[in-house]
Amino acid sequence: MSADAPFATDSAAAGSVATPYLRLDLGRVQASIDAMAARARTLGVTLRPHAKTHKSVRVARQQLAAGAVGLTVATVAEAEVFAAGGCTDLFIAYPLWVDAAKARRIAAVRAQARVAIGVDSTASLDAMSAHGIRPEVVVEVDSGHHRSGVAPEAAGSIGRYAADAGFVVRGAFTFPGHSYNPATRASAALDEARALAAAAESLAGQGLSAQVRSGGSTPSAQFAVGNAGGSTGGGLTELRPGVYVFGDAQQVELGTCELEDVALTVVATVVSHAGGRVLLDAGSKVLGADRAAWASGYGRLMEAPEARIVALSEHHATVDWPGGRLPQLGSRVLVVPNHVCNTVNLADAYVVGEGPQIWPVDARGRNS
Amino acid sequence: MSADAPFATDSAAAGSVATPYLRLDLGRVQASIDAMAARARTLGVTLRPHAKTHKSVRVARQQLAAGAVGLTVATVAEAEVFAAGGCTDLFIAYPLWVDAAKARRIAAVRAQARVAIGVDSTASLDAMSAHGIRPEVVVEVDSGHHRSGVAPEAAGSIGRYAADAGFVVRGAFTFPGHSYNPATRASAALDEARALAAAAESLAGQGLSAQVRSGGSTPSAQFAVGNAGGSTGGGLTELRPGVYVFGDAQQVELGTCELEDVALTVVATVVSHAGGRVLLDAGSKVLGADRAAWASGYGRLMEAPEARIVALSEHHATVDWPGGRLPQLGSRVLVVPNHVCNTVNLADAYVVGEGPQIWPVDARGRNS
Repeated sequence: MSADAPFATDSAAAGSVATPYLRLDLGRVQASIDAMAARARTLGVTLRPHAKTHKSVRVARQQLAAGAVGLTVATVAEAEVFAAGGCTDLFIAYPLWVDAAKARRIAAVRAQARVAIGVDSTASLDAMSAHGIRPEVVVEVDSGHHRSGVAPEAAGSIGRYAADAGFVVRGAFTFPGHSYNPATRASAALDEARALAAAAESLAGQGLSAQVRSGGSTPSAQFAVGNAGGSTGGGLTELRPGVYVFGDAQQVELGTCELEDVALTVVATVVSHAGGRVLLDAGSKVLGADRAAWASGYGRLMEAPEARIVALSEHHATVDWPGGRLPQLGSRVLVVPNHVCNTVNLADAYVVGEGPQIWPVDARGRNS
Repeated sequence: MSADAPFATDSAAAGSVATPYLRLDLGRVQASIDAMAARARTLGVTLRPHAKTHKSVRVARQQLAAGAVGLTVATVAEAEVFAAGGCTDLFIAYPLWVDAAKARRIAAVRAQARVAIGVDSTASLDAMSAHGIRPEVVVEVDSGHHRSGVAPEAAGSIGRYAADAGFVVRGAFTFPGHSYNPATRASAALDEARALAAAAESLAGQGLSAQVRSGGSTPSAQFAVGNAGGSTGGGLTELRPGVYVFGDAQQVELGTCELEDVALTVVATVVSHAGGRVLLDAGSKVLGADRAAWASGYGRLMEAPEARIVALSEHHATVDWPGGRLPQLGSRVLVVPNHVCNTVNLADAYVVGEGPQIWPVDARGRNS
């Protein structure tokens, strides 16, 4: 193989930024935001995007401007960032364990925004009560991912316990995480709808209305069952996808987007041709080490759809690059990471556009 | 299983820090630093620990105080941090691609510290020359990991090219990354010694002396071949292990340390017992997603040696917890991550001791 193929991927200005760095294509971001907003309208559901993917107040504002009713977050620290950034409707989709310090922080966020919190145990409700907070709650149910969440049939007893303790019960939510598999995307969406319908029925049995039946992930959104029925039947009332806003190599392989739809890439430099290999300066400390069992590698190359990252160290990506021409030493390439949420969480900033602008990853590392 | 086993893992003061967070046990850090320093003395080699593991100026100072001759780093940005922190001898063990901006940054670091840089191509030497820098270089050779590095027999031609271009050639280095496998730790150390001897011979054939023959990784250090011979034969002159300073679950499974030697843990809270599972609030955004093919899980629990993290999401760890008693909801446990280098790079700070003190992760995210 000859090593003479240039890959011009950046303007002169962006080209002065040291690699590896995160490059954000705002046109693609807006297209993805608009497409998911349209999908939610078609389904007759509200859209509450998960902000853990982008961790960016600016991107969140684009989602809200396109009609999202609010944001989903995973942690109190993320809620703090987005409330400070002006979002007034937050759902912490996580079975928080609340101690005195966390109760004070949640109270402070509630002074800025409407806040609901996920629950899957009476003990977590007791902990919130003991520390003097009674936010709106949404009961988490397990639709087949087998992570957090009670069985749908148990939603009513948790909801009744919450209501008796003075909490407002908004409804039920689930994360159909088993949609992260090319073989089960559609069936996971059906599981999600069934679990939320069963949870709503269980809540109704306790005299509680599931105003919100919240589901959704990027892989299941295409197959989601919308809000055709009433409050105790039918489908979802709310979608909470996250990754769609940027896309990644996992989503390409799951079939939710094409490579050319992916908005977030890691700009990397070819640093070695040792042994005839193509080695990039983007390793697991910038891409993340995610690799699902069904993934074809540790990431892809935007300009070379057949190429795969076949080995990953902290600062090296080894690329299997089929075809005749290797990218030159010193040339820059665009890496499509496997799982963009973890990629974003490794970086302090996005490099945006050709100017370029530097946007902070506002909620980077806000895990607690 | 009953859910009534308390696990008291932290003092009241540290207990007020929100989970998940990184907890550093300084006694264990010092013990590991002393043990590797003793190992290097026994081998008759110098020790140049890789600072990419801890990214901490304070920890680096402990290593230098224990006799390390300098530090190894992976990036120019790491070199900047440790030079600013007072380290005066740095080896960037990476085949850098140097453009104008990077050349200026390297020159600035060289004003503060002695700096050597890895090379595995004549093109990278040309790039440095073109931008007006000629640091000391060390030729990288491949000892079997098949990442960067030329064949040992090719070291001489790279070295000759460098010397003719005005670079001082310090010697050769390799990373025996194939030591990260329980089955090949010892053989990788032999490969390393053979490759460095062959590289030294190749350099000698070009009239160049391999003053430094640098190898080493934490898994191979126990089997490393020391400096018994002369400058063109024998074993290593320098070791560059990184992970030993903290240890992690990979090292426990590789057999380089015991669980109770691991100095860096992630303090996590049990947030859910849904489905009889134990779910922690430490996911891939704090632990990292590393999992080698031979690893028994995504991490371990310090207090429960039989337990394994069997699934990992961004903010959830699902633990398989054998035995009768699950840790209570709301209790805190110490997670031993698989690969501590990536764990540290996700955090802004260490929580140290029982006060506790907060130490910055000085070089977090310094990938370029």
